[in-house]
Amino acid sequence: MEKVNLREKLAMISDHWNPRIVGELNGQHVKVVKFRGEFVWHDHTEEDEFFLVLRGSFRMEFHEKSVTLGEGEFIVVPRGVEHRPVAEQEVEVMLFEPAGIKHTGEVASDLTVRRFEWI
Amino acid sequence: MEKVNLREKLAMISDHWNPRIVGELNGQHVKVVKFRGEFVWHDHTEEDEFFLVLRGSFRMEFHEKSVTLGEGEFIVVPRGVEHRPVAEQEVEVMLFEPAGIKHTGEVASDLTVRRFEWI
Repeated sequence: MEKVNLREKLAMISDHWNPRIVGELNGQHVKVVKFRGEFVWHDHTEEDEFFLVLRGSFRMEFHEKSVTLGEGEFIVVPRGVEHRPVAEQEVEVMLFEPAGIKHTGEVASDLTVRRFEWI
Repeated sequence: MEKVNLREKLAMISDHWNPRIVGELNGQHVKVVKFRGEFVWHDHTEEDEFFLVLRGSFRMEFHEKSVTLGEGEFIVVPRGVEHRPVAEQEVEVMLFEPAGIKHTGEVASDLTVRRFEWI
């Protein structure tokens, strides 16, 4: 039962699109990630995903629309909905999602991380 | 698939110890709450709880120790562990916990909220 400082954890990350696990509860992981540029289009058949912007901003693209999120804003992407995060500048994001989720869904990509690390 | 601004949601809250639901994913609720003072000692037999400080600070008391959390810091309280949040000044907190959780556990208190509202 130790506290976790999100800023300290983010300071340990220098790469993009590689979420690190910083907490676990009820079978869900809390992760932090930095990214810039365009991710791959994908969905998750069984998992809803939560994205909260801690610093910067990014756009969550859906096929029908896109939503731009700034600091202190979150979005829940429901299971089965194709989406693609895009950031013009580097952004810092906290994620909640079930442990064991594949972050690119069933899409294999150079960006696919096969095993998330704890930091 | 709309975004949620945590600051806007918190601006709608004027009472203490009354968490409001602002999001839902994977059977879990995202809530925001303001509080000041001492809560009741309680635990949750089946649920782990996540507390992230958005503004201010508070102390999470356990029987063995206490942990003071400031902005951008979170703690996970594992199921079965008795705890009591205490804030000297008003604090704003985001919670992540299973839908249906009783926030005072099995302890009935004047502070017990029987049905959490969505805002």
